[in-house]
Amino acid sequence: MTQAQIGVTGLAVMGANLARNLARHGHTVAVHNRSQSRTKTLVEEHGHEGSFVACETPEEFVAALERPRRVIVMVKAGAPTDAVIEEFAPLLEPGDMLVDGGNAHFLDTRRREAALRERGIHFVGAGVSGGEEGALLGPSIMPGGSKESYEALGPLLEDIAAKVDGVPCCTHIGPDGAGHFVKMVHNGIEYADMQLIAEAYDLLRQGLGLSPSQLADVFDEWNRGELSSYLIEITAEVLRQVDASTGKPLVDVIADRAEQKGTGRWTVQIALDLGVPVSGIAEAVFARSVSGHADLREAARGLPGPSGVPAGVLDESFVEDVRRALYASKIIAYAQGFDQIRAGSAEYGWEVDPGALATIWRGGCIIRAVFLDRIREAYESETPPVTLLTAPLFVEALGLAQDSWRRVVARAAEFGIPAPGFSTALAYYDSLRAERLPAALIQGQRDFFGAHTYQRTDREGSFHTLWSGDRSEIGG
Amino acid sequence: MTQAQIGVTGLAVMGANLARNLARHGHTVAVHNRSQSRTKTLVEEHGHEGSFVACETPEEFVAALERPRRVIVMVKAGAPTDAVIEEFAPLLEPGDMLVDGGNAHFLDTRRREAALRERGIHFVGAGVSGGEEGALLGPSIMPGGSKESYEALGPLLEDIAAKVDGVPCCTHIGPDGAGHFVKMVHNGIEYADMQLIAEAYDLLRQGLGLSPSQLADVFDEWNRGELSSYLIEITAEVLRQVDASTGKPLVDVIADRAEQKGTGRWTVQIALDLGVPVSGIAEAVFARSVSGHADLREAARGLPGPSGVPAGVLDESFVEDVRRALYASKIIAYAQGFDQIRAGSAEYGWEVDPGALATIWRGGCIIRAVFLDRIREAYESETPPVTLLTAPLFVEALGLAQDSWRRVVARAAEFGIPAPGFSTALAYYDSLRAERLPAALIQGQRDFFGAHTYQRTDREGSFHTLWSGDRSEIGG
Repeated sequence: MTQAQIGVTGLAVMGANLARNLARHGHTVAVHNRSQSRTKTLVEEHGHEGSFVACETPEEFVAALERPRRVIVMVKAGAPTDAVIEEFAPLLEPGDMLVDGGNAHFLDTRRREAALRERGIHFVGAGVSGGEEGALLGPSIMPGGSKESYEALGPLLEDIAAKVDGVPCCTHIGPDGAGHFVKMVHNGIEYADMQLIAEAYDLLRQGLGLSPSQLADVFDEWNRGELSSYLIEITAEVLRQVDASTGKPLVDVIADRAEQKGTGRWTVQIALDLGVPVSGIAEAVFARSVSGHADLREAARGLPGPSGVPAGVLDESFVEDVRRALYASKIIAYAQGFDQIRAGSAEYGWEVDPGALATIWRGGCIIRAVFLDRIREAYESETPPVTLLTAPLFVEALGLAQDSWRRVVARAAEFGIPAPGFSTALAYYDSLRAERLPAALIQGQRDFFGAHTYQRTDREGSFHTLWSGDRSEIGG
Repeated sequence: MTQAQIGVTGLAVMGANLARNLARHGHTVAVHNRSQSRTKTLVEEHGHEGSFVACETPEEFVAALERPRRVIVMVKAGAPTDAVIEEFAPLLEPGDMLVDGGNAHFLDTRRREAALRERGIHFVGAGVSGGEEGALLGPSIMPGGSKESYEALGPLLEDIAAKVDGVPCCTHIGPDGAGHFVKMVHNGIEYADMQLIAEAYDLLRQGLGLSPSQLADVFDEWNRGELSSYLIEITAEVLRQVDASTGKPLVDVIADRAEQKGTGRWTVQIALDLGVPVSGIAEAVFARSVSGHADLREAARGLPGPSGVPAGVLDESFVEDVRRALYASKIIAYAQGFDQIRAGSAEYGWEVDPGALATIWRGGCIIRAVFLDRIREAYESETPPVTLLTAPLFVEALGLAQDSWRRVVARAAEFGIPAPGFSTALAYYDSLRAERLPAALIQGQRDFFGAHTYQRTDREGSFHTLWSGDRSEIGG
């Protein structure tokens, strides 16, 4: 019997495409699925693409693999993943590798890794980005787990990953849950990026009365500059699409309720635990949530506000204003995401290399963009910045965008066009660069009502004013 | 031996003050603390205020209580609470009541309530707001747990609670974790309220160059109108305070790093799970977090931006603009908090009465305000609103505040004064009232890269465009 180099269990689209990608790269791939029909279909339809070993049972599947075994699990996150682990782990031997390529919560991955490590099995939580097409043609892969496991897995994964300038979009992220953590934040950043693009579209449409097809031209144009990215590219495609049944632009026929699957929400929840202000991601998650609250929106329709943008107030220059505001806001959102990765890495001792991460996000994944090259350069410079937005290149960009950015946020407020992502990015920027923040007043209030104490600018210690006494200060 | 009506274990300031409050209201109170010195000090210093039964051991404490026993636990949230429960539960009998008056996470309260219910003991998670002074002189109390337990506990708790117009600031909130849940959201709202006040202060200080003592006058003035509240009142007090050692306004000597204890963060995390957009609370939590990131702030100092407000651009009318913007933003933040309570109540089947909640927040707690009367009226009207901001009274207020609110957010953006709370409130308002949101574009993007499908405005079903095929639409 042929020994397979690697196996994939769970053959829904993502799993099947990963298996095909591996086979197309010359690897013999054992394939298994709980219901055998999927295994059969895969081999029937795509068997000619490479070498597959179809397996009916977990035992057969495990027996088909050369040792140490490399098993990729592609099933739903949560209980199904635990079930598959429980099914396969007893069949594996010390040194074997179990790769979870789903969107697991990194805390689950940490738990599973620890449990399997005790049994001598390498558990690798690997973020896989790029959707179905990426899985087949080259995803961005973010494997966590032990260094040892990466030595055995890395070559195969790098083989099937996307390549940019010949560099594979796959690298070892760090121990245990590091891979799933950075994939989570990747998705959070993706939420923010999409929200900012949506706001730019809305501002230009409402502000200048441009049609979706005119806006498609604008995004095409933007895609040739510093904003060049997959998301800008597909935005133009979506805006240009005409609905066959009504003849209207498709974007006007799609219900305006954005859905979400959880990783954006997780990103914000974990950021809160880590004390990282990811306001750009949070506003993007909230914006989707608002869009889905039909009851609130129905009740709020007709609330007082400006009725549209008066003709002639805005001119063509608003397009460039919005473009710059989008770029500046995007820098903020990515900086916040990378800050979260830095904080997570420190908290869990992962030593994630942000430059390497930017490198593997340049291709394969949804947020792939020229911009990621700038981020890589910033982190690989001789003096890497504390936070991205203070990298010289971005400081310059923020300086150039400055006036436009402020005008756009001000216009949005005046004309009643919601721009939560642009607004929070600017407020964050102004908070961070502020010489003094009104947080001092908040500390004073907290000391007043809760004796929570405060610190002073001029000497060390904790202080409390006897607010209900003679108002002298105690402490030190 | 005297039988006590109620007992308090855990005699740090909050516990001691609650015990004294009960004793001052004529109840005999058994008191116990792990280290006996605190029990001794309490009785020595405050024994004359009422009838205390000092108990050295848990057994003695339990024996001193009339049945069914009412035991209030005032220890730190988390492991210490579990330890005390484990210590006392075996000594209690079916029908006895164990009240946790700390800031427990409501999910812990649910777990504890279920476990103790099996043993026949009523576990009551009670939110207690008002800090140390409130505990002594009249807090706002939010007890969860069984209705049966409230029949026995309610009269005592209502006795010691704050009163407004003769109405006690205590009511049965709902089963199991309902009390701690609403206390959590109360704290989240408090975060938002404090952040908005801090922004108003900062805008007026930077915008008009007013001194802290001039600003104290402004807040005093505001405290006579619709903003009248405890937080506005103490803001004036804090701003008027002069630091004895430097002669400067105290607010200029306090380090501008706002701290937090976790309930604000929890509120946002739970809101994300419930799908409620509490952007005002989130921005407040993030703003505190930003203020504490010394490394980021240090790195960001000197980033490009406007340098101050040019003289003469703003005049006295800006004070009223900011006041109106503050009131409008406050309506949004409270509406979001009450939306979260509605969602939590539905999720856990608590049937929380929002009008009753507004009623008991009118006194005793940190967010007590005339405003809560308006909220109570809204919810007690014949047609309670889906969300607070659509109650006729608030619609009118938002209409009046409208132009000022937009001017303030625009000015903040132009002049580089961070106003994340004001900005997000306005963006939320404009999102909710929007006829169409750009969420439709996001759905189009998601369908493009992930085949996530979309819904249509003109017919039921899920649809997908074959983006990499002939771009026809499938589904229905």
